[in-house]
Amino acid sequence: MGVSLKDVAQRAGVSIKTVSNVVNNYQHVTPKMRAKVQQAIDELGYRPNLTARHLRKGRTGIIALAVPEFGNPYFAELAGEVVDAAARHDYTVLVDHTAGQREKELLVCQGFRSHVIDGLILSPIHLETEDLMARTETAPLVLLGEREYEAPYDHIAIDNVAAAREAVAHLIALGHRRIAFLGSRTGQERQPAHLRLRGWREELAASGIAPDESLVVVTDGYGREDGAAAMASLLDRGERPDAVFAYNDMIAIGAMRTITERGLTIPGDIAVVGFDDIEESRYGATTLTTIAPDKAAIARLAVDSLVERLAGTPVAEPRRPRPGYRLVVRESTTPRASTKPREASGPPS
Amino acid sequence: MGVSLKDVAQRAGVSIKTVSNVVNNYQHVTPKMRAKVQQAIDELGYRPNLTARHLRKGRTGIIALAVPEFGNPYFAELAGEVVDAAARHDYTVLVDHTAGQREKELLVCQGFRSHVIDGLILSPIHLETEDLMARTETAPLVLLGEREYEAPYDHIAIDNVAAAREAVAHLIALGHRRIAFLGSRTGQERQPAHLRLRGWREELAASGIAPDESLVVVTDGYGREDGAAAMASLLDRGERPDAVFAYNDMIAIGAMRTITERGLTIPGDIAVVGFDDIEESRYGATTLTTIAPDKAAIARLAVDSLVERLAGTPVAEPRRPRPGYRLVVRESTTPRASTKPREASGPPS
Repeated sequence: MGVSLKDVAQRAGVSIKTVSNVVNNYQHVTPKMRAKVQQAIDELGYRPNLTARHLRKGRTGIIALAVPEFGNPYFAELAGEVVDAAARHDYTVLVDHTAGQREKELLVCQGFRSHVIDGLILSPIHLETEDLMARTETAPLVLLGEREYEAPYDHIAIDNVAAAREAVAHLIALGHRRIAFLGSRTGQERQPAHLRLRGWREELAASGIAPDESLVVVTDGYGREDGAAAMASLLDRGERPDAVFAYNDMIAIGAMRTITERGLTIPGDIAVVGFDDIEESRYGATTLTTIAPDKAAIARLAVDSLVERLAGTPVAEPRRPRPGYRLVVRESTTPRASTKPREASGPPS
Repeated sequence: MGVSLKDVAQRAGVSIKTVSNVVNNYQHVTPKMRAKVQQAIDELGYRPNLTARHLRKGRTGIIALAVPEFGNPYFAELAGEVVDAAARHDYTVLVDHTAGQREKELLVCQGFRSHVIDGLILSPIHLETEDLMARTETAPLVLLGEREYEAPYDHIAIDNVAAAREAVAHLIALGHRRIAFLGSRTGQERQPAHLRLRGWREELAASGIAPDESLVVVTDGYGREDGAAAMASLLDRGERPDAVFAYNDMIAIGAMRTITERGLTIPGDIAVVGFDDIEESRYGATTLTTIAPDKAAIARLAVDSLVERLAGTPVAEPRRPRPGYRLVVRESTTPRASTKPREASGPPS
């Protein structure tokens, strides 16, 4: 299909080997020869077979993205962005899930299929700095997500403390004082909710509100069922917050379901803010106010980092870029102006 | 880590080569020798390194699953099931997305990375029978989903016509007569909504209701935004159905958002049934009645088929197994008994 290396060689009047050297950017090609081949490439619209190029360099052209779970739309949406970002560098992406288990994170991290992948983007939950320091696998690794590590790897994450503070500040500005945090974990100082919980504490304190630890609910996981159970346990023990800040949108959506089941209104009785801006948050009967991390930027920064490492850039100083985020205000904190029927036409039947 | 081939050989008093022959199921091993090695394996708890086994057989131990999009939770949930099913055969899964584009489906189908994968599970949207007949790639292929093909490949799909009929029958039994279908496509006779739309027509006709084609709404895609737009267009042109059967849960969820925005109630004004039983359908303010395909069975049947093909079973008669499904009745067709507050404790504030 299309133009071959041979066609380019014939047009340029050089050997196939020379064309190959130009296409693969080898040094031992004269500028004149390079220009000649490039002209033929441009005239014929030749597009190199990049999988073959990767293979000739001893690479597979595949990078792995290991996420805690497929079932969390945040990671599905992020994976879509990583696939797009990788395609711009002619890489394809193998998506793996660790089920949030430390053993699987270790396995992936140690390169259990390094014969297949050139590099790895990993979003860990339980991995520790010691695990990363003990890593012997040489394939480049880029970390995503909220965990903080003292390890020589690039790490892409938004400023979670600042983002959490902005979410809480929004609730305080609306007059809320009893603001619960759903989605902490036991032993939280080393757990992912750490930074967002710290943001909750800092913003409350900065606003002169003593953080009420009885409004912090530990969850088993980060799913809708965890949010529903957390909200139920809070209400069952007689706590009635006037707002909830959830670790992520999934927990927020579960909490909203419980609030509705209890016959309470959102945001009238309890306002809710999530984190992630998954598409689902825009389609509920009550849309969800949330922190929207710039997923495209996260994906682009991660893939760019990996590609640079693959090109041999030494990791003297591991990079910690901070992709952007924004607070998206929706109905779960600010009610709809009107809920009256506004059909453009058609008689009510 | 753990017990090696060498340990087994020493315990059994045989050569490493003999142990390897037993582990890899080669024929030229006497039953006595096999028993001896097996005993040592059992005593030591040896677990073969399966990646190495795959490689020795000229395989990578990786199968690909190509789905239209990561963003649709149905495929994310199905992918999780396929990963689990594949792990039971010591295969790992590379998840690919075709963005529902025919070009990418063709690319995947033609094995553009057959150097990496042993076999492919593909859920096509636009691929035609001719495309499949023209396939030259020899890696085994198993098809998923609603499209029907006359091609020599195993194809795993629930009975979509029967499932759609059950959904529509449920609405009719509740007294609904004006039942819209959201999620048809132009040129639908060759499109995925075909079978579910046929089920809608057949069940209405069987119940003595003339299918009203003005209640069939074509959508651009299968997302929430498509469902929201479809419902809006129906209401905007003055059609007011008393029930909606959506091609999938995503479209149903988008439609529910529009119904709510227009100040109408679910199911009071308009009842809604979806298809897929994604987790999200259980957590909205109004939970969604839906058809729940047996995703675990679909994944198991697909992986089992692929593994059999990899083992060399000839495809004389392509198989068309029918995994099960069930109608799950929730609040979008049958309202909650009570919406009064039922907090176990805690004073209303």
